[in-house]
Amino acid sequence: MITVDWKPNRFSPVPIQKQIEQFIKEKIVNGEWTIGTKLPSQRALAQAFDVNRSTVVAALDELTAAGLLAGNTGGGTRVINTTWSLLASVSPTNWNANVELGIHPPNLPTIQEINHAEFRSGIIRLGTGELSPSLLPASEQMQQLFARQAARPIPLGYQEAKGDSFLREQIVQRLKKEGIATSPDSVLIVSGALQALQLIAIGLLKKGSTVLLENPSYLHSLHVFQSAGMKLQGVPMDPDGLQAELLPAYQKQFKGAILYSIPTFHNPTGNVMPAKRREELLRVCDEQSLPIIEDDVYRDLWLDERPPCPIKAGDKNGNVLYLGSMSKSVSPGLRIGWLVGPQPVIERLADIKMQIDYGASSLSQWAAGEWIASGAYDQRLAVIREQLRVRRACMLNALERNCRDLASWDYPTGGFYVWLRMHEAIPMKTLFDRALSAGILLNPGHLYDRQEFGALRLSYAYASLEELQQGIAALADIIRSLGATGRT
Amino acid sequence: MITVDWKPNRFSPVPIQKQIEQFIKEKIVNGEWTIGTKLPSQRALAQAFDVNRSTVVAALDELTAAGLLAGNTGGGTRVINTTWSLLASVSPTNWNANVELGIHPPNLPTIQEINHAEFRSGIIRLGTGELSPSLLPASEQMQQLFARQAARPIPLGYQEAKGDSFLREQIVQRLKKEGIATSPDSVLIVSGALQALQLIAIGLLKKGSTVLLENPSYLHSLHVFQSAGMKLQGVPMDPDGLQAELLPAYQKQFKGAILYSIPTFHNPTGNVMPAKRREELLRVCDEQSLPIIEDDVYRDLWLDERPPCPIKAGDKNGNVLYLGSMSKSVSPGLRIGWLVGPQPVIERLADIKMQIDYGASSLSQWAAGEWIASGAYDQRLAVIREQLRVRRACMLNALERNCRDLASWDYPTGGFYVWLRMHEAIPMKTLFDRALSAGILLNPGHLYDRQEFGALRLSYAYASLEELQQGIAALADIIRSLGATGRT
Ligand SMILES: Cc1ncc(COP(=O)(O)O)c(C=O)c1O
Ligand SMILES: Cc1ncc(COP(=O)(O)O)c(C=O)c1O
Repeated sequence: MITVDWKPNRFSPVPIQKQIEQFIKEKIVNGEWTIGTKLPSQRALAQAFDVNRSTVVAALDELTAAGLLAGNTGGGTRVINTTWSLLASVSPTNWNANVELGIHPPNLPTIQEINHAEFRSGIIRLGTGELSPSLLPASEQMQQLFARQAARPIPLGYQEAKGDSFLREQIVQRLKKEGIATSPDSVLIVSGALQALQLIAIGLLKKGSTVLLENPSYLHSLHVFQSAGMKLQGVPMDPDGLQAELLPAYQKQFKGAILYSIPTFHNPTGNVMPAKRREELLRVCDEQSLPIIEDDVYRDLWLDERPPCPIKAGDKNGNVLYLGSMSKSVSPGLRIGWLVGPQPVIERLADIKMQIDYGASSLSQWAAGEWIASGAYDQRLAVIREQLRVRRACMLNALERNCRDLASWDYPTGGFYVWLRMHEAIPMKTLFDRALSAGILLNPGHLYDRQEFGALRLSYAYASLEELQQGIAALADIIRSLGATGRT
Repeated sequence: MITVDWKPNRFSPVPIQKQIEQFIKEKIVNGEWTIGTKLPSQRALAQAFDVNRSTVVAALDELTAAGLLAGNTGGGTRVINTTWSLLASVSPTNWNANVELGIHPPNLPTIQEINHAEFRSGIIRLGTGELSPSLLPASEQMQQLFARQAARPIPLGYQEAKGDSFLREQIVQRLKKEGIATSPDSVLIVSGALQALQLIAIGLLKKGSTVLLENPSYLHSLHVFQSAGMKLQGVPMDPDGLQAELLPAYQKQFKGAILYSIPTFHNPTGNVMPAKRREELLRVCDEQSLPIIEDDVYRDLWLDERPPCPIKAGDKNGNVLYLGSMSKSVSPGLRIGWLVGPQPVIERLADIKMQIDYGASSLSQWAAGEWIASGAYDQRLAVIREQLRVRRACMLNALERNCRDLASWDYPTGGFYVWLRMHEAIPMKTLFDRALSAGILLNPGHLYDRQEFGALRLSYAYASLEELQQGIAALADIIRSLGATGRT
């Protein structure tokens, strides 16, 4: 479905309806809207153009009469001719068939809806897993970074396959403090941790392999492994995280090729795996010859005390691939993450990265390196932690006031998330839609566990304090209106 | 195969051999070199460590005696135990089997060799398709861009799926001057033009599809379509480029799903398709319902006169996907390219881009937008063109002086390349190896056409003027030494 963000000019002498006709005709003439393109509904067009629906109907009628558009019985309108195909008998490509052919599936419908709604103004984003714009570095800080005559010139050519060596060195130094001993040879810079998962999917696993992972998990909301022909198999969690003792049985039944885990400030539950469980998990995986992807992008966002050492810190056999990112602690726009693992694996994935995009932005790599080396990274972290503590308190307060009878939740000790478990199952799709009509964007639990219809992922990182309070009060009302009676 | 870039410290009191043993042991203990990892040859290690081969042999013997390494009859050495697996009976992951399992094939061996050799110092890169570092903007220029308080703040959050709207608007304005009418809705910002090809491969084409393309072509040196399960089928070129009149027959036989073409300053031949052939190609493709990918990354690098309008400019049916990039005209490190096409196609590919890396670096997108809007882009182009003219003259002179009797070539009117066609076939692999031993890195023709063993892609963009002269003189000697007699 195409989107429209143009409006007729009310001050123009050309009548509104004519302007709309011209706008649509131009899209068709330019080849932007090809034959087969489905137009948004009349209602959606009226809303986008900010005009009465009758004006839209009149304009569409004109273009239909001209042979460019056709309506169908379901009320949809499609482009059926271009001005040129009317003149000559050429056969333009049916892109819309192609669009459905490709190998890679589209995003989950709910995710697509979320992606769109995020750019609507005035929406309260109660589930968004990003730092609020107010928590990102100011533009001026980034400018200063560049303005300060850095010792290292800004590289502008194609980069080494593994990425900027200065940045890799900085990462090695930071990881050392977390107990991970490695060298820049075994670090690959990626365009965000998401890309590391993409590379592992296409570079290390066979088609038809199974990836074991926590249930629920962030990974369930993505297609990265499935689109490469792999299956996901959830493993239950308890309050200490993934239940390591179940792994041998799961391995026996599902023969996982790799295990994906977020042991620290888990997305979506906020859970932290204690040191003991980490050791157990590593031991069981070693015994089962099951390699681990440890996704540790939230590590630096502890709010009360440092989390236990990464699983990777105890890994003496190179069984763990370790992922980090600048996205959650500095800026997602940089698109800088890293992957640490055995050198032959890193070199294999570096070769593939060169084949798919010739490496990450050298500007971003340079900025990330300077950001860490200059100390700005740690300074920002202190600011962000302080703010996240205030936000966490605000959300927990609002939940306490509004939702005690409707749901339960745990106290998150870091990261962004509160996993809200309803006391009673409620129709999640209706909840999502009603909340959206009320201007509240939710991340329903089934994004993270297909079977989960009684939970929501809340995030205190994005919405403002006022929005958090307002949003949660309104959310509680909507849940109640859906028949949840509340426990007494 | 792993690479090593460490050297023992000659000033340390620890004997060199012990340092080498410790270095290797640490790699194994850290899990960077896992069980099964194949070490570089003794000769290669001796070269990397800058020591005698006997020192390397002694160190490897020690580690073999300790049970960590084992040699095989072929003379190769592998890691067979970690210090930990010697202690406990754990079974570490055999990553090296995984490394061979993945879906995505490794780069072509010659390309891997080239990628490595590029980072050797003192090498003359006679084929490299990049601007020389001296033609990239100075670090200061990039710093000034950031320092100048720009009207637009630097965005640091996750970005809109299609990319920064200011940059898309800049691109639309530039394309207008080239005769392409489009709007920002139909433009997708990608992390380099290479990624656009990746997105088309996984987002628009069915497995088993055939991609038609020029023979030779840059695309033959990549795996982007093949790794997504597609086949490439070359179509012959004449001096006017791809032979459009052959397409119906090729279509009949191979049923191409799409045609990939580089009509302007073709890589590797430097060829420019005249306006008439462009019209014919578009007409034939329209008749055959064969969509076109027009890769136009070299357009701005004309040296004598503006090239004909893009094929896209004549496209009234939305049959053409158009690719551009900042890599060849400003900086490849930015990793910024664009894809222009029908809106439903663009939105489909934008959705997939979000799924594979959440969009291009916001820093790079911001810088690219400012670069164009501020006029710096056009100023740089003028400088680059001037320099490329000098370089072109230098290379053609050297060829004239050294190679007249050995090969023929055309005069390139823009871009980077001279396609050197030998009068006699010569053993290309031997030529490549001998040249490399003499410090000259070549791009052999078979990278661009598997059947081509009598051509080389030369580039005047990368090596210095002195290197160009020296390199070509040395190249001619090597060709002669391989038995090419020279025509008289
Ligand atoms: C657990 C986890 N891993 C990876 C990512 C992706 O991070 P990046 O922006 O570095 O690709 C996220 C972001 O939501 C996440 O929650
Ligand atoms: C014809 C052609 N297309 C695309 C590319 C890749 O460009 P980018 O750096 O924008 O990915 C190149 C670079 O060599 C090229 O020659």
